[in-house]
Amino acid sequence: MKFDALVSGHHIVMDALPEVGGNNSGPRPKELMLASLAGCTGMDVISILKKMRVEIETFNINVKADVTEEHPKHYTSMHLVYEFRGKELDPEKLKKAVELSQDKYCGVSAVYRKAMPVTYEIKISE
Amino acid sequence: MKFDALVSGHHIVMDALPEVGGNNSGPRPKELMLASLAGCTGMDVISILKKMRVEIETFNINVKADVTEEHPKHYTSMHLVYEFRGKELDPEKLKKAVELSQDKYCGVSAVYRKAMPVTYEIKISE
Repeated sequence: MKFDALVSGHHIVMDALPEVGGNNSGPRPKELMLASLAGCTGMDVISILKKMRVEIETFNINVKADVTEEHPKHYTSMHLVYEFRGKELDPEKLKKAVELSQDKYCGVSAVYRKAMPVTYEIKISE
Repeated sequence: MKFDALVSGHHIVMDALPEVGGNNSGPRPKELMLASLAGCTGMDVISILKKMRVEIETFNINVKADVTEEHPKHYTSMHLVYEFRGKELDPEKLKKAVELSQDKYCGVSAVYRKAMPVTYEIKISE
């Protein structure tokens, strides 16, 4: 059940859990959909904030998704939590950066939104 | 631009290309959508063929996708090429396994199909 995906010269290992015949030597393929979304919008946000000259100390994105119980077991909604940490961060600029990614730039989000609701929230701390 | 995704305990690194400020230390996030699809349907097919007692020597899946030139740059179609190699493989059984994955089991394909056409072909060699 272990698959090695060659993606632009990089190897990404995927595997199933032991209970379905795998060895858990990599994430489940479906879960990569969530990493793809987080990486896509994350890079957008960092690029936009750089242009806005906003400096953040740490940036983390959590993605949660609902999945059906019946086959094909697929995601029916996703929710992103953007977590920013830094000094005197302007909430409006962070919101603007996230909105620009979600509404204009993130191609992964654009596809997923055709299939399900993709929502988000922003958390800011010092 | 480098992001480290923690997915069920496994680290997946994504990065942008140097021309957009990255170091290419991992694949682009959007491309992970294709790895996700290949891994999902690949595991289905292997599981189904095992139940059918079909033994294959090598199994490879190539995924190609069309992407828009305008923002948000997103995939508009995907095409999978399933490549099987083995002795005296029954084309009907291979076709059945792929169909079962695409029509019934693969949750990644189920989502992508809501957003774009997902097509496939099967290649068999000894």
